[in-house]
Amino acid sequence: MDIAVAQSGGPTCAINSSLMGVFKQALKSAQIDKIYGSKNGIEGILNNELICLNTAISSEDDIRIIKQTPSSVLGSCRFKLPDFEIDSKPYEIVLKRFEEMGIGAFFYIGGNDSMDTVAKLSAYFKSVNADISVMGIPKTIDNDLCFTDHTPGFGSAAKFVATTIKEITRDNSVYFLDSVIIVEIMGRNAGWLAASSCVLHSDDEVSPHLIYLPECEFLVDEFINDLKDEIAKHKTVIVVVSEGISVGDTSSEKTDAFGHKDLAGVGKKLENIVKQRLGCKVRSIELNVLQRCSSHIASKNDIEEAEEIGAAAVISMLQGETGKMMCFKREADSPYKITIQSVDAASVANKEKLFPLEWINEKQNNVKNEAIIYFTPLISGEQEIEYKNGIPVHFKL
Amino acid sequence: MDIAVAQSGGPTCAINSSLMGVFKQALKSAQIDKIYGSKNGIEGILNNELICLNTAISSEDDIRIIKQTPSSVLGSCRFKLPDFEIDSKPYEIVLKRFEEMGIGAFFYIGGNDSMDTVAKLSAYFKSVNADISVMGIPKTIDNDLCFTDHTPGFGSAAKFVATTIKEITRDNSVYFLDSVIIVEIMGRNAGWLAASSCVLHSDDEVSPHLIYLPECEFLVDEFINDLKDEIAKHKTVIVVVSEGISVGDTSSEKTDAFGHKDLAGVGKKLENIVKQRLGCKVRSIELNVLQRCSSHIASKNDIEEAEEIGAAAVISMLQGETGKMMCFKREADSPYKITIQSVDAASVANKEKLFPLEWINEKQNNVKNEAIIYFTPLISGEQEIEYKNGIPVHFKL
Repeated sequence: MDIAVAQSGGPTCAINSSLMGVFKQALKSAQIDKIYGSKNGIEGILNNELICLNTAISSEDDIRIIKQTPSSVLGSCRFKLPDFEIDSKPYEIVLKRFEEMGIGAFFYIGGNDSMDTVAKLSAYFKSVNADISVMGIPKTIDNDLCFTDHTPGFGSAAKFVATTIKEITRDNSVYFLDSVIIVEIMGRNAGWLAASSCVLHSDDEVSPHLIYLPECEFLVDEFINDLKDEIAKHKTVIVVVSEGISVGDTSSEKTDAFGHKDLAGVGKKLENIVKQRLGCKVRSIELNVLQRCSSHIASKNDIEEAEEIGAAAVISMLQGETGKMMCFKREADSPYKITIQSVDAASVANKEKLFPLEWINEKQNNVKNEAIIYFTPLISGEQEIEYKNGIPVHFKL
Repeated sequence: MDIAVAQSGGPTCAINSSLMGVFKQALKSAQIDKIYGSKNGIEGILNNELICLNTAISSEDDIRIIKQTPSSVLGSCRFKLPDFEIDSKPYEIVLKRFEEMGIGAFFYIGGNDSMDTVAKLSAYFKSVNADISVMGIPKTIDNDLCFTDHTPGFGSAAKFVATTIKEITRDNSVYFLDSVIIVEIMGRNAGWLAASSCVLHSDDEVSPHLIYLPECEFLVDEFINDLKDEIAKHKTVIVVVSEGISVGDTSSEKTDAFGHKDLAGVGKKLENIVKQRLGCKVRSIELNVLQRCSSHIASKNDIEEAEEIGAAAVISMLQGETGKMMCFKREADSPYKITIQSVDAASVANKEKLFPLEWINEKQNNVKNEAIIYFTPLISGEQEIEYKNGIPVHFKL
């Protein structure tokens, strides 16, 4: 049998490692012949843009460089399948293409939107008695997928965020005057990535002094009081805010194709509030897409796990599974141990897992030690990166 | 004799390596006894906050970790000495402190404002026949100091900027639609750091497709036409703009203590213009202070040279020099070779060296190959960084 694989949703530093997990495991499997990569997610199947990866990826060197390349080498999409009872057209195109090409399994690497596609597509294939497996491989820097301990891509984003906030802390410490730095962190409605900056506390850092997550109500007066307290104690204060907190004035928020709010700009809003209310030196910093593409400081643990979960999807498919998303189960924190299992993709699709309220402190302006224990293994280890002329080498298909 | 050393101006990734260059060379020199670090630049001398570095830095491990710590471990200041003919008070305090403590030489690591301090202080000491040497060691990510081929700190900033723009390029390539990314780069009135992103062109990257520098007049209509051309050719376009370009609407610009304009925000202005004029997907990214503090991806060449130029300042002082700034002279591009010389600090003070007009293309929207040859050695090599719990280790005094 031949197989197809595609990448979807927002890029991460680990999504190409999951692709390599699928690729390498498929190469090893006697039952699998050709491995096709679909360009721009499921759109590549609809538009007949499938690349034979067996020829496109020609060496161990290629695999190594693909793993250190950020973003999706196959491209991405934000295409949402309609319900097939309402509009079966795209389903029929996919089925016809797969049958014509002898593709017996499809692997989709993505977030909760992509798991919607996995669930719908596998349900459709079952409904028409087509023997094609559809498997989901999780991916998102937001770490907000249900049923998995964490998501591939998250650990590398968290490592970049924590490292950068530590560096910003040093940078901001040079002048002896009252000052506030507000760092805005991605994560949509979930505070995981913002919260993960707490790992600095395990290593003799007071910074970040304050962490605000969308799981709690954000109150501007409390925020200003918190700042006054921290300035009195430390003079220079580093604040981490999740893009998902609500600071008011949300009337002009835009939404994307999936109805997700465009949440950018909360750091700037708070900067202006602090300037007005406290009058001290204040700067907001938006780490922007760097959070999802800074592969030069990827977490080794994340990259290795991303490859393993990709490989596990192939093994599960060969054991007869379909309509599943692979997931991590944490067996132990220290020494850290995970196992890989599978769960119905339908139960993950379009849902969010929020940061646990019991890991947030009473004042709702920081997180507890339990969070540090959870996050630390996910950011551990450094990838060896190949450079040329001083710049990391990337792979382009 | 004892010596004192201080750090001034905006932080870089290499300023602590220059401090270690002074420290290690002074330890080796039989003529030098104690090495004092002045906290917060020259303010530490005025306020009697001097730390004995011989005891504060106790091992080779300390030195190694200081070199991988961004920003100034001694703190910084933006204190500007008055002319001593007008107000000799601060000069008298410094002289008295140095004479009381037996300090026979002072090393100031900083930019063109700090060289003003070096020139004034050495002139004052000469005028009162005090046998105290004052030496300047260059530092700035802006690379805008006269008489030196380049400045310590610049190479690391350039390596971070180029790496990040390459990663952003991958990130932005996943969706097949017209889009513009505008990356705003530091540099004040000089385009060096923005221009340095051209190193990507030597390695099979078309990005950055457009580079705009403050050395040329910025015309919005030309910019929009350039964008249309590049979108037609490449769909996804990466634009690098120096914070120093003038987009109009400059009435509200603030100035700092030295009269420097606050230049932030040009990327956002252009984002809004592109949104209005072209209507395509557009995002502006401000790399902010990350450009000067991302030590985890420092240039090995930069860190090594920063240490060497610090050491050279000690040697020159022992040879009887004062009122000088150490500088690099490039002997060859390939294989790259520099020598270290000295120049009157007064001739560097308060001046800027701009990016050469002859290295800018005719359309003034990119740079020529000569610039790639100049920049490439400066970003070469990677530092081995020590991590603990997944995060780089920093030194705190």
